[in-house]
Amino acid sequence: MSRRNRKRRIHDSAFSRRSLPGSAPGTLIVDPNAPKPKIHVVAYSAEKILERDIEDVQDVRSILNQWPVTWINVAGLGDLSVITRLGEIFNLHRLALEDVINVHQRPKVEQYKDYCYVVVRAVRNKEGIASEQISIFLGKNFVLSFQENPSSSFDPVIIRVREGKGRTRIAGPDHLAYALIDAIIDGYFPVLEHYGELVESLEDAIVAQPDGKLIEHIHDMRHGLLIIRRAAWPLREAMTVLYREPIPLIDEEERIYLRDCYDHMVQIIDLLENYRDITSGLMEVYLSSISNRTNEIMKVLTIISAVFIPLTLVAGIYGMNFRHMPELEWGYPYYFYGLMVMIASALLLYFRIKGWLGSSERSKERQREANQRNI
Amino acid sequence: MSRRNRKRRIHDSAFSRRSLPGSAPGTLIVDPNAPKPKIHVVAYSAEKILERDIEDVQDVRSILNQWPVTWINVAGLGDLSVITRLGEIFNLHRLALEDVINVHQRPKVEQYKDYCYVVVRAVRNKEGIASEQISIFLGKNFVLSFQENPSSSFDPVIIRVREGKGRTRIAGPDHLAYALIDAIIDGYFPVLEHYGELVESLEDAIVAQPDGKLIEHIHDMRHGLLIIRRAAWPLREAMTVLYREPIPLIDEEERIYLRDCYDHMVQIIDLLENYRDITSGLMEVYLSSISNRTNEIMKVLTIISAVFIPLTLVAGIYGMNFRHMPELEWGYPYYFYGLMVMIASALLLYFRIKGWLGSSERSKERQREANQRNI
Amino acid sequence: MSRRNRKRRIHDSAFSRRSLPGSAPGTLIVDPNAPKPKIHVVAYSAEKILERDIEDVQDVRSILNQWPVTWINVAGLGDLSVITRLGEIFNLHRLALEDVINVHQRPKVEQYKDYCYVVVRAVRNKEGIASEQISIFLGKNFVLSFQENPSSSFDPVIIRVREGKGRTRIAGPDHLAYALIDAIIDGYFPVLEHYGELVESLEDAIVAQPDGKLIEHIHDMRHGLLIIRRAAWPLREAMTVLYREPIPLIDEEERIYLRDCYDHMVQIIDLLENYRDITSGLMEVYLSSISNRTNEIMKVLTIISAVFIPLTLVAGIYGMNFRHMPELEWGYPYYFYGLMVMIASALLLYFRIKGWLGSSERSKERQREANQRNI
Amino acid sequence: MSRRNRKRRIHDSAFSRRSLPGSAPGTLIVDPNAPKPKIHVVAYSAEKILERDIEDVQDVRSILNQWPVTWINVAGLGDLSVITRLGEIFNLHRLALEDVINVHQRPKVEQYKDYCYVVVRAVRNKEGIASEQISIFLGKNFVLSFQENPSSSFDPVIIRVREGKGRTRIAGPDHLAYALIDAIIDGYFPVLEHYGELVESLEDAIVAQPDGKLIEHIHDMRHGLLIIRRAAWPLREAMTVLYREPIPLIDEEERIYLRDCYDHMVQIIDLLENYRDITSGLMEVYLSSISNRTNEIMKVLTIISAVFIPLTLVAGIYGMNFRHMPELEWGYPYYFYGLMVMIASALLLYFRIKGWLGSSERSKERQREANQRNI
Amino acid sequence: MSRRNRKRRIHDSAFSRRSLPGSAPGTLIVDPNAPKPKIHVVAYSAEKILERDIEDVQDVRSILNQWPVTWINVAGLGDLSVITRLGEIFNLHRLALEDVINVHQRPKVEQYKDYCYVVVRAVRNKEGIASEQISIFLGKNFVLSFQENPSSSFDPVIIRVREGKGRTRIAGPDHLAYALIDAIIDGYFPVLEHYGELVESLEDAIVAQPDGKLIEHIHDMRHGLLIIRRAAWPLREAMTVLYREPIPLIDEEERIYLRDCYDHMVQIIDLLENYRDITSGLMEVYLSSISNRTNEIMKVLTIISAVFIPLTLVAGIYGMNFRHMPELEWGYPYYFYGLMVMIASALLLYFRIKGWLGSSERSKERQREANQRNI
Repeated sequence: MSRRNRKRRIHDSAFSRRSLPGSAPGTLIVDPNAPKPKIHVVAYSAEKILERDIEDVQDVRSILNQWPVTWINVAGLGDLSVITRLGEIFNLHRLALEDVINVHQRPKVEQYKDYCYVVVRAVRNKEGIASEQISIFLGKNFVLSFQENPSSSFDPVIIRVREGKGRTRIAGPDHLAYALIDAIIDGYFPVLEHYGELVESLEDAIVAQPDGKLIEHIHDMRHGLLIIRRAAWPLREAMTVLYREPIPLIDEEERIYLRDCYDHMVQIIDLLENYRDITSGLMEVYLSSISNRTNEIMKVLTIISAVFIPLTLVAGIYGMNFRHMPELEWGYPYYFYGLMVMIASALLLYFRIKGWLGSSERSKERQREANQRNI
Repeated sequence: MSRRNRKRRIHDSAFSRRSLPGSAPGTLIVDPNAPKPKIHVVAYSAEKILERDIEDVQDVRSILNQWPVTWINVAGLGDLSVITRLGEIFNLHRLALEDVINVHQRPKVEQYKDYCYVVVRAVRNKEGIASEQISIFLGKNFVLSFQENPSSSFDPVIIRVREGKGRTRIAGPDHLAYALIDAIIDGYFPVLEHYGELVESLEDAIVAQPDGKLIEHIHDMRHGLLIIRRAAWPLREAMTVLYREPIPLIDEEERIYLRDCYDHMVQIIDLLENYRDITSGLMEVYLSSISNRTNEIMKVLTIISAVFIPLTLVAGIYGMNFRHMPELEWGYPYYFYGLMVMIASALLLYFRIKGWLGSSERSKERQREANQRNI
Repeated sequence: MSRRNRKRRIHDSAFSRRSLPGSAPGTLIVDPNAPKPKIHVVAYSAEKILERDIEDVQDVRSILNQWPVTWINVAGLGDLSVITRLGEIFNLHRLALEDVINVHQRPKVEQYKDYCYVVVRAVRNKEGIASEQISIFLGKNFVLSFQENPSSSFDPVIIRVREGKGRTRIAGPDHLAYALIDAIIDGYFPVLEHYGELVESLEDAIVAQPDGKLIEHIHDMRHGLLIIRRAAWPLREAMTVLYREPIPLIDEEERIYLRDCYDHMVQIIDLLENYRDITSGLMEVYLSSISNRTNEIMKVLTIISAVFIPLTLVAGIYGMNFRHMPELEWGYPYYFYGLMVMIASALLLYFRIKGWLGSSERSKERQREANQRNI
Repeated sequence: MSRRNRKRRIHDSAFSRRSLPGSAPGTLIVDPNAPKPKIHVVAYSAEKILERDIEDVQDVRSILNQWPVTWINVAGLGDLSVITRLGEIFNLHRLALEDVINVHQRPKVEQYKDYCYVVVRAVRNKEGIASEQISIFLGKNFVLSFQENPSSSFDPVIIRVREGKGRTRIAGPDHLAYALIDAIIDGYFPVLEHYGELVESLEDAIVAQPDGKLIEHIHDMRHGLLIIRRAAWPLREAMTVLYREPIPLIDEEERIYLRDCYDHMVQIIDLLENYRDITSGLMEVYLSSISNRTNEIMKVLTIISAVFIPLTLVAGIYGMNFRHMPELEWGYPYYFYGLMVMIASALLLYFRIKGWLGSSERSKERQREANQRNI
Repeated sequence: MSRRNRKRRIHDSAFSRRSLPGSAPGTLIVDPNAPKPKIHVVAYSAEKILERDIEDVQDVRSILNQWPVTWINVAGLGDLSVITRLGEIFNLHRLALEDVINVHQRPKVEQYKDYCYVVVRAVRNKEGIASEQISIFLGKNFVLSFQENPSSSFDPVIIRVREGKGRTRIAGPDHLAYALIDAIIDGYFPVLEHYGELVESLEDAIVAQPDGKLIEHIHDMRHGLLIIRRAAWPLREAMTVLYREPIPLIDEEERIYLRDCYDHMVQIIDLLENYRDITSGLMEVYLSSISNRTNEIMKVLTIISAVFIPLTLVAGIYGMNFRHMPELEWGYPYYFYGLMVMIASALLLYFRIKGWLGSSERSKERQREANQRNI
């Protein structure tokens, strides 16, 4: 990944609180860069359905209470007045609204008197891993959801509501909330699959040829897994609360579905931790392969030095200008070349016995035997 | 293990959800590569036994309720209609059926109104370690089991039922479910034994001659242990639920047997973690032995350089062309060779005192003493 | 950070108990370097407000019990008599007073009969990270707070009380205590943001050019995170106690606000641990990049030695003084230079095949491909 | 330790289940290499005692029920008929008998209707560390114990029973069971003491001269500690069960004694973990000392190369055959030797300033100062 | 620290049980090297006080029951008869007496019918870190304390009793027991302060100049922290028991004081773990600084080799004895020196571009900038 991506991701993991330290609780300050909200309302009973994009928040009042289930989805948090007016219509606590706007919440379930506030985080792998906050308010006859950015993750739920198959239209708002959460959790799997492939390609790359960039890839991968992890662990906890604790707004029958969500979260975390373990292992394999290569390089250097430096000495000796060196008179110096070849051969033999030379063939053989045994 | 094996195994640990994110809960989509199901029915009372392979799922209806215990084993998940029709016959929840088909569940126990759904995972060491999902539905008078692939792991149970020895035919379907789970858990032991031998051979190989391939073996081994671990830990949890929590379908007397299963799982995990600890230790031993060897190579290089480079200088000096070098006139230069030998000896003596030379003998001696003390 | 800073910080993490071992419990000994206390009193009801700096502690008596809420803030702990006299006025336990003065307490909540004693720690990033003790006594109609040093962290609370917006003036002393704690917790975020930027700049620096000072930066960063951690973890525990356990002095309605504080602490710890994880990863990346560079240096050395040492031998051989070396007579020795070039080329080719030369280009290419795949 | 020992120990930690996977629960298959059982019976009341070696298991029937306490000790598990007939006499569950024979159980306490089954493991340091299974059945008036191999660990208990001092003869079979467990737990201490000495000698060896065999010793030590750990941790858990949970067969007064056993186990585990921590530390010290030595070797190589290679160049220059090199005519070349000495001195001075030379003296001095400060 | 000290300390962490394995419970065997006991009795009521050294244990009987509180302090455990006779007088359980003598107990609280037995451990930093067992028996009207060695740690308590200030003389034996425990816990702080200074000096030393002895210091430090840790963790647990669990002998009002003790233990452990974390970090910094230095050395070697070896080759070429080398005839060989300087300069330039030369200045500058940013 490019440097830009890494920075972006770090920025994601850090965050900036918009309200000043010490400001009154529930102070709502909107991120100026947040996209303007688009409001989509779906109201339905088992027989009928009303679907509409609305501009004026007050239109919600006229729809609400007319239908067994009203779902208001707000995509984008860039307009404070929309959020506060919705807060008034549904009588939401200011602290909850603050959490909706301040998009760095951990997934959680908070029960208020008339509604239940669920924060979940979706993961997305567009230009780097990032997680995104989705706030869901579940009331007696409504579901109010806030998305950080407009996205298509709720589309399959809308389609199911339109088609009205299965339990979707018969069940209450608790089933709708479940469907939204389930859609978000399902979005984790393709991201994890991508990481599965990354792990595989890193494993192959380390075996083929470890180079200095691999360590950055491993670090990037770990960083990405950390981001998913920060979203996934508290989401699992929130799911435990939803399916185990007695929440009056959630029907007994719905719990089997929520247990399924919980099951998926457990599977996701299982995979996550598995990838983390493998990645740590890769780091060690990488480090040891560097050490191994330094070792190999040292061997080459040592063998070359050990063979040629003594020979250079011999040549140096016969290059001395002593007056009386009878060896120099002994006709053609071919015996001398013989001497050199002998010294070199002796040294190479020594290294071969020591296992520094030709070890690659022998070790390959041993390898082959080991493979046969291990299959 | 070959590269192909490694890939296969990773593929095992990752997975692909077949249903699209956001699709309705309980959407059943079958893996096109899954083997076609073979259905084997065994119905028995203490006196009689009926055993049959059936083609048409509806045949089950005629057998069911006629016998105290009916066991339907489905090997292979490649035909959706078989599974859905069995779901109708036994009145199974769609989410449970989805889990049967989606073979990446963690072992778990789920109680429904009329039956209990148990997911276990078997491990197999054919062409690499892999784990396989077995789904078991335990009802008042039936056991319905789904195997990912046809395998022989249930054969000993069939034989025991046929022979009718011990409690097998007298006890209810809970004992049969126990027998199936026990057979699967017993299958972990040969795989672990294989790993025990692998650990041993790796330990020997590291002592004998550490080479670059060892690290891959250690990594493969850790990877394999992770796969077993992912199956074993939740299986232990599931066993705890089965033997401790009050499940109406399970007889009080059967709990002693299930506790035995739990005990085996504890033993398996104990061994697993033991192997993991040893493997981590091996990694460290391996890394330190590489460092040690680099050290040895450096010593050889340094000694050779330190001995020959000064000598080469001496030879170089007497090879200079100064007009007045009276030494060059001093008859035969044997005193000069003496000088060289002296320099070399002095340097070797220095290295010996420093402990870089001949250390192998001395250290072996010290080793021997240490051994005697440690026995 | 300079050496001075590191020392200062360590000193912060260590500490010196002023009372001698074995002295009577509740022995109050003041740090001679502590700043002299400044006492600020704010008393208010929904309608009226009284704000005053006081010199004589006895003035407190006249204000107390006249107002629904009286807040006495003592900034600086350098005068024992002030603290003991306040202790008498509010009837505080000697052990609690000892804890006020001995500013190395971990955050905690202690319930006494008439009041509740809360210790929190603020973090500050002026000339190095340090944490500071704030003691808060919450009574039926008063809040008594002690700051280690005068600071502006309570200013926003004072302003809110003056302005009287929202619940601040209507609610009791429990809301005031909450507001103080919230202000302190909010102070953690800018410090963590600073660390987020540090992590980012370290990541960039390691990729750009790892040098020996980086390790000190990483160590300093870890040290700083440890200091925050020692304050944050017990503070989270204390928040759990405040919002979950039944404390008579805290109103039911106030718990939602305290849960919000708890939530913030969880977020802070989440970030902290995230930074710690990333920092550990950076350490490994750093170590591996050093190994990599040693590797590179060794390659350069080996290639240069391997190319030039054999050539030097060849030159040495033709510098020998043998009488009969017919090669020396073969006219211009250009064939000899050719031989040298050939030897050198052969060796360079060998290293190129081995992947030691020009690997940078090839690996960059591979890198580029990998990047395209990973986006 | 020799290679043989290592293998033997690994073999201990692995194991082979004798029954085939899927065989009926409670299938009893005896290890053909297990020693033949020796049966020793001690029956006693406060006044009398009967002690006898018996051959025929049926003799037990005649003794049982005649005495307040009957202790049957079976040393060796090599005869299936002995074990099954004892199982019949005492009415033991087949699963319990299976656990007696399959000697790889973790320590545990299992309550059956009429008796309590306790598995403990003894450690032994003969030819390598190994642990051994002891099964104890505690009934209303009997204790039945099975030892894997005949050993002398119960001798002190026999002597105490014979002498009849203290509570031994007055108390019931629960006290006898306690005495047996206590004797086994006491056997851990000499083994740990041996490891304490090993740790000490390894620490000294690493300081004195780290060599390649040390790492194997550390690995062996860790391996041994793992074996003890696998026996000790579950034994502690079993002791907790024995002293805390209400077991009807165990007298209230006996619990103080069992708490003492539990205390010893806590102490044993405390020591174990301590040794493990120290051993990990030793590994790091070892690795860093290797790095340090490589560093030292590199320094020697670099200094020698840096000093002699330039000198060789100088000598080479004056060995050139240029016609016009006036320097060569300048009388005796002593100024030239001076030049060489100067170059060499300058380089050595440079290295000294850099701290590579003579550092040993300076660092020793610094060391000495540090020591004085640290005492 | 010297080798002697290390040995002594290890010996402290190991231990030798004096009673043989399997000996009867409560067998009392005294360490022959233990100092002879000195018995000091202090009896007091609110008005009067009696203080006396006694020789004969029976004298205790005459004092006991005459005073509201009688404190018997036994310093030194070298005389079995003293301990057994005290056991008879106070009717102590033999297992408790065994624990008094066997001075390797972990801190714990054990309730017996008439008294409460508390084991605490004091730490001492005289000639190395060591911990020492203090046994305290708290009865209805007495406190009986056993010190392993005579020490002055109880002196401040004696003085407070004599002076009779505060609660000391009014409160019962529970307050006295608290005062003793508090005095022992206070003794941990100076030891930890010493370690704080050690950490600081190690951090400075690693930055200044890492050498081989540092690793031993770090190891010694970790060893010492382990010894304190083994005493501190169970002591914290024991304090939890004392202040939380209902113990009839401890007054409700005394619990606030015991909670203060618990608080101190939490602080101590917090610091301990902090130092351990920092020390681990130091180890990594140390290892990386060694790698860095090896790197530096390699650079020097490579630069020198790379510059001089090619030059030597050039000189060697012109030293060859070919008949026809026209270059040799070209007048003064100054152009040749120019060639050499050019080659050398080119190589140095190459290394400078690569960042191996002069990097220190550039990196210092970058460092400076980084510092300014980080403050």
